[in-house]
Amino acid sequence: MGLTDLETRTQVGIIGAGPAGLVLAHLLRARGIDCVVLERQTRSHVEARIRAGVLEHGTVDLLTSLGLGDRLHRERMVHHGIELLFEREAHRIPLTELAGREITIYGQHEVVKDLIAAWDGPLHFSVSSVALSALTSTPTVSYVDADGVAQTLHCDVIAGCDGFHGVSRAAIPPGVLTVHQRDYPHAWLGILAEAPPSSEELIYAHSSRGFALHSMRSPTVTRLYLQVRPDEDLAEWPDERIWSELRARLDRSDPAWSLADGPILERSVAAMRSFVVSPMQYGRLFLAGDAAHIVPPTGAKGLNLAVADVKVLADALTAWYASGDATGLDAYSEACLRRVWRVQHFSWWMTSMLHPTSDNDPFDRALQLSQLRYVTSSRAAATSLAENYVGFPFP
Amino acid sequence: MGLTDLETRTQVGIIGAGPAGLVLAHLLRARGIDCVVLERQTRSHVEARIRAGVLEHGTVDLLTSLGLGDRLHRERMVHHGIELLFEREAHRIPLTELAGREITIYGQHEVVKDLIAAWDGPLHFSVSSVALSALTSTPTVSYVDADGVAQTLHCDVIAGCDGFHGVSRAAIPPGVLTVHQRDYPHAWLGILAEAPPSSEELIYAHSSRGFALHSMRSPTVTRLYLQVRPDEDLAEWPDERIWSELRARLDRSDPAWSLADGPILERSVAAMRSFVVSPMQYGRLFLAGDAAHIVPPTGAKGLNLAVADVKVLADALTAWYASGDATGLDAYSEACLRRVWRVQHFSWWMTSMLHPTSDNDPFDRALQLSQLRYVTSSRAAATSLAENYVGFPFP
Repeated sequence: MGLTDLETRTQVGIIGAGPAGLVLAHLLRARGIDCVVLERQTRSHVEARIRAGVLEHGTVDLLTSLGLGDRLHRERMVHHGIELLFEREAHRIPLTELAGREITIYGQHEVVKDLIAAWDGPLHFSVSSVALSALTSTPTVSYVDADGVAQTLHCDVIAGCDGFHGVSRAAIPPGVLTVHQRDYPHAWLGILAEAPPSSEELIYAHSSRGFALHSMRSPTVTRLYLQVRPDEDLAEWPDERIWSELRARLDRSDPAWSLADGPILERSVAAMRSFVVSPMQYGRLFLAGDAAHIVPPTGAKGLNLAVADVKVLADALTAWYASGDATGLDAYSEACLRRVWRVQHFSWWMTSMLHPTSDNDPFDRALQLSQLRYVTSSRAAATSLAENYVGFPFP
Repeated sequence: MGLTDLETRTQVGIIGAGPAGLVLAHLLRARGIDCVVLERQTRSHVEARIRAGVLEHGTVDLLTSLGLGDRLHRERMVHHGIELLFEREAHRIPLTELAGREITIYGQHEVVKDLIAAWDGPLHFSVSSVALSALTSTPTVSYVDADGVAQTLHCDVIAGCDGFHGVSRAAIPPGVLTVHQRDYPHAWLGILAEAPPSSEELIYAHSSRGFALHSMRSPTVTRLYLQVRPDEDLAEWPDERIWSELRARLDRSDPAWSLADGPILERSVAAMRSFVVSPMQYGRLFLAGDAAHIVPPTGAKGLNLAVADVKVLADALTAWYASGDATGLDAYSEACLRRVWRVQHFSWWMTSMLHPTSDNDPFDRALQLSQLRYVTSSRAAATSLAENYVGFPFP
């Protein structure tokens, strides 16, 4: 059957131009597999979305191997440790010393910019009415393009990289997926501020007032977070209240330390959730990244986990196209979920250790402090944190 | 003031002839400090109470240094590892290899027998109406002895070693103690059976039916536990149901393995609780062991923690009597609580990892399995479990 003007064909249809979809596109192109990427938002929106900023060594290596490392290596900040702050004392976890690998600070939206700038294949922004069909036979994506023209994309395989709220997971018939979910009784109020970092490394702060995180994006821009209620109203947080609360939670006994402040460039509240669907595939649809799983941000894992997913998928597709061997595709979900659950557990563990419970139960608080003292005094426990934080090697 | 016939004086009055009280008595005698031990129960009751059976290396060393190690070293079973069983596969944690110390299997009531047999100082069983007074000035214990005679014991210091339900903690005025408590939604149904152990090492089993533990007391006696509801009625557990449930929870893929059964010698249900009071002292009363803290039995720590407490107390009393230096006594609670909270956290962690929640929540179950896979595959995580299980050196 020939295709009309409004029909196109590709090998892999990729839904979503976030890190998962774009890294997959680059991986497939490097292996000679055709793909088309569809994105609901505009390019400028996608390139401006402020998200995570900690890249595992494996993520950096993968981007570098794809020729995407030039600006990353030039502009990134390499960190060899993080600080855990509790009872007003800072304790360093020397990540590189304990786990043999460093971490990279580089904003997710910078990664996305690099991925888009280096991409010369089909990538359609501002598409709407995306619908997936014939997932178990001849996968088809229908959509309306940026000019309002109805389009049909025929694919061998669809990669659902369109995030938690995307259409891909919703296209799977009821009863196929098992959902594992945990909603936390807290959220993070995050700000991006024009202020130099007050510490060379990230600070994870446990305080009876709530958790706080000091992070950074560059020598002149800090990224700071406060634990708040999930229904917190940003309007109740004028700049001075944010800075005052950050100062209180990040306070330490060292009188030489102080928190630099500055104009707040961006602010938002994000609820915290753990979410996993199993399996991560249905017929010829494969879910990757946030479409399949959400982790609370405390472990800094969301982006890295998405990249690990699409690495597995690209390897499986490469084998399938090369020899017709579907073993890797059939085992996609199982291969990903092992890592997904390790990361879910680590993210839950970091979250539980650092966030006072909503009722400030003294038993919970004492357990948290005991855990923090232990993890900062036992080499085995610190190594366990470190090896999870820097990330296990990609499959 | 002279004493009447019914009044006696000692340096340290010890309430309770369990492991805490008896080890303290031996420690004090070795340092030339007088004490009197009072116990509510009969000697035969105390010597027959079936309790824990895992001794840390530090506990064994301390008993040995007190000349109490002869039968212990002859009859104990030395273990160099434990097994974690989940998804029907057994995974060994090589304790000695990872943490440099072994564990000893020897029943707590055997320790108590040894302590009593070797004690030739004042030790009064079957006392009643024990009451403590003048705790901040001239501590006094009044009681009725086994012959029904009212007695008064004047002391410099009182050691409250009379367990969770004892009178010592209750003698502290309201408002002094902060209580930290967590009640778990499960209990352990424990049996002692005349059956050879089915494994050379302890088996901690995670199963969707509930937790089970295979332990032993000798080459012919096993100690087995089943997670049950806190309000479980023993009458609903005839022998065959107990064995059948143990077989189901301890089942493994290895067809060569089977659970040996035999006559059940003892059975009981114990609720699981975490409990800590802070501080562990008031005036000249010092609480030790279960009088101050309860841990869930999953970490096998109750006895060992009690011994650590009285080691701290004996050292502090020795310094005080030698030179009048009260620094150690003043810091008793703080010195003990550091270890208490480490052990509380470890015991809570083992409990949380191994006990399915009452609603069998699939997210909790997936976290547990991820944790179990991790702890049995990462050397750092296994070492962390091992160093806690074998116990940190005594202060």
